[in-house]
Amino acid sequence: MRSYALGLDYGTNSCRALIVDLGDGREVASAVFNYPSGEHGILLDPRDPNVARQNPQDYIDGLAVVRAAVKAARAADRRFDPAKIVGIGVDTTGSTPIPVDRRGTPLALLPEFRNDLAAHAWLWKDHTGHAEAAEITALARTMRPQYLAKCGGTYSSEWFWSKLLRCKRAAPRVFNAAHSFVEHCDWMPALLAGDTAPDRLARGVCAAGHKAMYCPEWGGLPDAKFLAALDPALAALRPRLFDKAWPANHRAGRLGEEWAKKLGLRPGIAIAVGAFDAHMGAVGAGIREGTLVKILGTSTCDMMVQSARRKLADIPGVCGIVDGSILPGSYGIEAGQSAVGDIFLWFVHHLVPDRYGKTADARFRALGERAARQKPGGHGLLALDWNNGNRTILVDVRLSGLLLGQTLHTEAHEIYRALIEATAFGALTIMKRVEEYGVPVREIVNCGGLAVKNDLLMQIYADVTNRPMKVSRSDQTCALGAALFGAVAAGKAAGGYAGVAQAQKALCGVRSKVFKPDPAAHKVYARMYSHYRALHDAFGTRDFGGKLDGVMKDMIALREEQRTADDGR
Amino acid sequence: MRSYALGLDYGTNSCRALIVDLGDGREVASAVFNYPSGEHGILLDPRDPNVARQNPQDYIDGLAVVRAAVKAARAADRRFDPAKIVGIGVDTTGSTPIPVDRRGTPLALLPEFRNDLAAHAWLWKDHTGHAEAAEITALARTMRPQYLAKCGGTYSSEWFWSKLLRCKRAAPRVFNAAHSFVEHCDWMPALLAGDTAPDRLARGVCAAGHKAMYCPEWGGLPDAKFLAALDPALAALRPRLFDKAWPANHRAGRLGEEWAKKLGLRPGIAIAVGAFDAHMGAVGAGIREGTLVKILGTSTCDMMVQSARRKLADIPGVCGIVDGSILPGSYGIEAGQSAVGDIFLWFVHHLVPDRYGKTADARFRALGERAARQKPGGHGLLALDWNNGNRTILVDVRLSGLLLGQTLHTEAHEIYRALIEATAFGALTIMKRVEEYGVPVREIVNCGGLAVKNDLLMQIYADVTNRPMKVSRSDQTCALGAALFGAVAAGKAAGGYAGVAQAQKALCGVRSKVFKPDPAAHKVYARMYSHYRALHDAFGTRDFGGKLDGVMKDMIALREEQRTADDGR
Repeated sequence: MRSYALGLDYGTNSCRALIVDLGDGREVASAVFNYPSGEHGILLDPRDPNVARQNPQDYIDGLAVVRAAVKAARAADRRFDPAKIVGIGVDTTGSTPIPVDRRGTPLALLPEFRNDLAAHAWLWKDHTGHAEAAEITALARTMRPQYLAKCGGTYSSEWFWSKLLRCKRAAPRVFNAAHSFVEHCDWMPALLAGDTAPDRLARGVCAAGHKAMYCPEWGGLPDAKFLAALDPALAALRPRLFDKAWPANHRAGRLGEEWAKKLGLRPGIAIAVGAFDAHMGAVGAGIREGTLVKILGTSTCDMMVQSARRKLADIPGVCGIVDGSILPGSYGIEAGQSAVGDIFLWFVHHLVPDRYGKTADARFRALGERAARQKPGGHGLLALDWNNGNRTILVDVRLSGLLLGQTLHTEAHEIYRALIEATAFGALTIMKRVEEYGVPVREIVNCGGLAVKNDLLMQIYADVTNRPMKVSRSDQTCALGAALFGAVAAGKAAGGYAGVAQAQKALCGVRSKVFKPDPAAHKVYARMYSHYRALHDAFGTRDFGGKLDGVMKDMIALREEQRTADDGR
Repeated sequence: MRSYALGLDYGTNSCRALIVDLGDGREVASAVFNYPSGEHGILLDPRDPNVARQNPQDYIDGLAVVRAAVKAARAADRRFDPAKIVGIGVDTTGSTPIPVDRRGTPLALLPEFRNDLAAHAWLWKDHTGHAEAAEITALARTMRPQYLAKCGGTYSSEWFWSKLLRCKRAAPRVFNAAHSFVEHCDWMPALLAGDTAPDRLARGVCAAGHKAMYCPEWGGLPDAKFLAALDPALAALRPRLFDKAWPANHRAGRLGEEWAKKLGLRPGIAIAVGAFDAHMGAVGAGIREGTLVKILGTSTCDMMVQSARRKLADIPGVCGIVDGSILPGSYGIEAGQSAVGDIFLWFVHHLVPDRYGKTADARFRALGERAARQKPGGHGLLALDWNNGNRTILVDVRLSGLLLGQTLHTEAHEIYRALIEATAFGALTIMKRVEEYGVPVREIVNCGGLAVKNDLLMQIYADVTNRPMKVSRSDQTCALGAALFGAVAAGKAAGGYAGVAQAQKALCGVRSKVFKPDPAAHKVYARMYSHYRALHDAFGTRDFGGKLDGVMKDMIALREEQRTADDGR
């Protein structure tokens, strides 16, 4: 019997549903829902650019995509029947913790917290906890160095404990009202299963391991003594979090009556444990040992795996090494860049004249066409890709963008090309780091919107890294990965798969077009990369006596002081 | 009897005539002529951004402004009669040498050279001679250090010998055909007087001293041995240049019949020796000891004087110290920034979305209004003002722009403010340098378009430097200075003045509105300036082991290599 799986992919600005035919991997239909709240789904605070929250109601409303996808699937495939959906998988952004009450209801949905930004979901790119992140790093460095070793040597403001500690400090009313905090990716399966109670819901090892310092080796979450040293309130919260976390091939539960009815699906469908978009996306792109999967979107994630049967060194600067976070039985290595597509969007929206086009799409097209005609280095520009800080390998949000080489003739499409190149240099820096620590990159598979839509970017990535760039066959690799885990959670007997490897073989692949490196271009880029590294080290490390690294950080400090001063007027 | 003087001011993109009432300093009328050739009067080479030439025919055609100004003066003042014009002064940009034949006809005007860019006027901002400048600097450093000491320690690609040597190397056909090379400011008075023969025309000490290493101390121009060491052709040319140069209070000649008729003026009017716009502008702005005159345009000039009766130290990094170049009997000190208004123009034309306005003027207004509402440092940005290199104090054209601090939210008006601030930091760096070498700045008088039109810029300059900013009363200070020298060349008996000081007393002044520094803003800017200096030293000097200075220079080298490679395809 023909069977299908449903993948739900919650991104930064929208969520999507994908229905996959488990017989041949065909993507039958999909649907997208744009979050209605805030600016493109993000709740901002004009006084503090570090704030990025989301309205949990958008997550619930977003489930409307399921009916839309089912409808589209019926139209596309007359043999399709929603009763044949055997598994559901969910991926989301993260770390995106939501403060919830005892029943698992997000505080933001309660009337008394509706207008409190701190009661909403703390989106991955919320950087308000940067001081707390530094504090956690400093404490762990002396008290529990093993905690840091597994997450690259620096604890990030994007992660779970930084956000919780920040919430405690900046919004104690919310913190004290929260029975627990649940990652968005763990909350969605529980919602669908009909029970969001934080004491019962299945937590995923992906979020727990990469963001909350969870590790079975030391008995789960960081110990109470360590948490108490940060803040006694965190130690008091610890028992209301969790002891055990699961990989995504594990079943989180089964679709409950309420949501089955709302979505028009059969109750009892297996729901996989949730994980992050990048991790499920890596699986959807066919990750295996030696494959670097790059998920290119507003930010990027660089994903690799290594069998957990062999020892793996701690790799400074990556976002974590977690057993089972991508594939069960393998270490999942996560790295990434804090902004890639976001840098291009910023540029196109704020600094490109209308003669390049009236709409953002038209401008991107014109910029791309003109940039593609330039030779590498022909613009004389060099940029750092740090407009949103640096996630890997510096793990420092208090960095900023830099552009060098502009003359009185520099044009927008030249800067656009330099920004693409900057992200390519950032990507190369990550690759070099993992290879230095014994994880060889034998193949690169790209996925995400930029990989599919931006040939110039793909070619530049090939030329900069001197490696062929493959592109995942699916346009929706994350959702495909989620559906894949849904099928695995269902199991073979129910029409799913017995394991991830079998599922990947059936569902995943790459396109025939491969972007091959051009040796002449690579030679120029190797020269430019040495300069990129000089800037990287000068502004991102203490290598230059901290003089320039201090410039960037103090300008950020000054900006914040002056904006705070504005409030006081 | 009422008398008048005519000032002719040849700028980068246009020339203007100003008629001044010598009784009360009233500016009776003026007229402007935009050069028709090239891009806004500049002949460019798409293959080499360093090229900037002008068509000498534009200079001749530009004299049409005189009739236009006379006509306007008649309309404005019924007592005005062109027969009452007693003196003419001319200022131009420089160093802008023109290759000429034995009669002083620019080679570009001969049919066989019409299409040869090298046969045209080599505009001040032509940087093709950067390698030659480095060669001249290196040779002088060992062979004739005294030559360098008077021009700030580094010989610039913008200057006379760099351009001649470049011409010899890159365009030997033009060089060999040239009987001599004449600065634009020396050629104009000769043209009006009816004899442009290079062997007879009066050369000004301003151009000679600041740009051609002329100094009476060592007998005029650099000696033949030094020139021969650069290239025997330069030594061979030397006798066809000049031995003696004059300050602008000296009379270059009298208006000849031909041009008197063409312009509708009386023949025999005194014509002052020509000088550069900035030098005559400084006089028009009322320069005296302790006054820093800032001429703010596409680039800036910072002008000071000190009595030649007291010893003056050589000041490293300034563009020259020349006896009589501004005021007769005083050392004229010239410094400046290679691009100020040009940076804003570049930004507005290339990187500002149309929502700020449809025209450049409208955009400037909107950018200025929004930037003015920001607090200093509130944008978190820091820029270097080197899009066109750095004239003072680094004297290095092989530098480029830099912007640091951009996030995903940075907007165009914030960058605009950062660019203004960058030029203010550059201005402060120059002030600090001259003061360190014993020339105190007791008053700052600004003139030029930006000083009159851009209140935000003036206030930022006051806040950054912590000094009041005065603005010259005249909108056309350079043309006023030229007219003033015309009146002095005429002499008191002819209805002019006996000397420059008397003329300044009668004609010059400042506006009532003075921009006063705000202490709170200055405090922020002092902090930002320390960061500016860190970037300045890191990218502009060898202080950081040359690592970052090397980045900027190699990116420029790469740009040029790749553009040259394009030609070869």
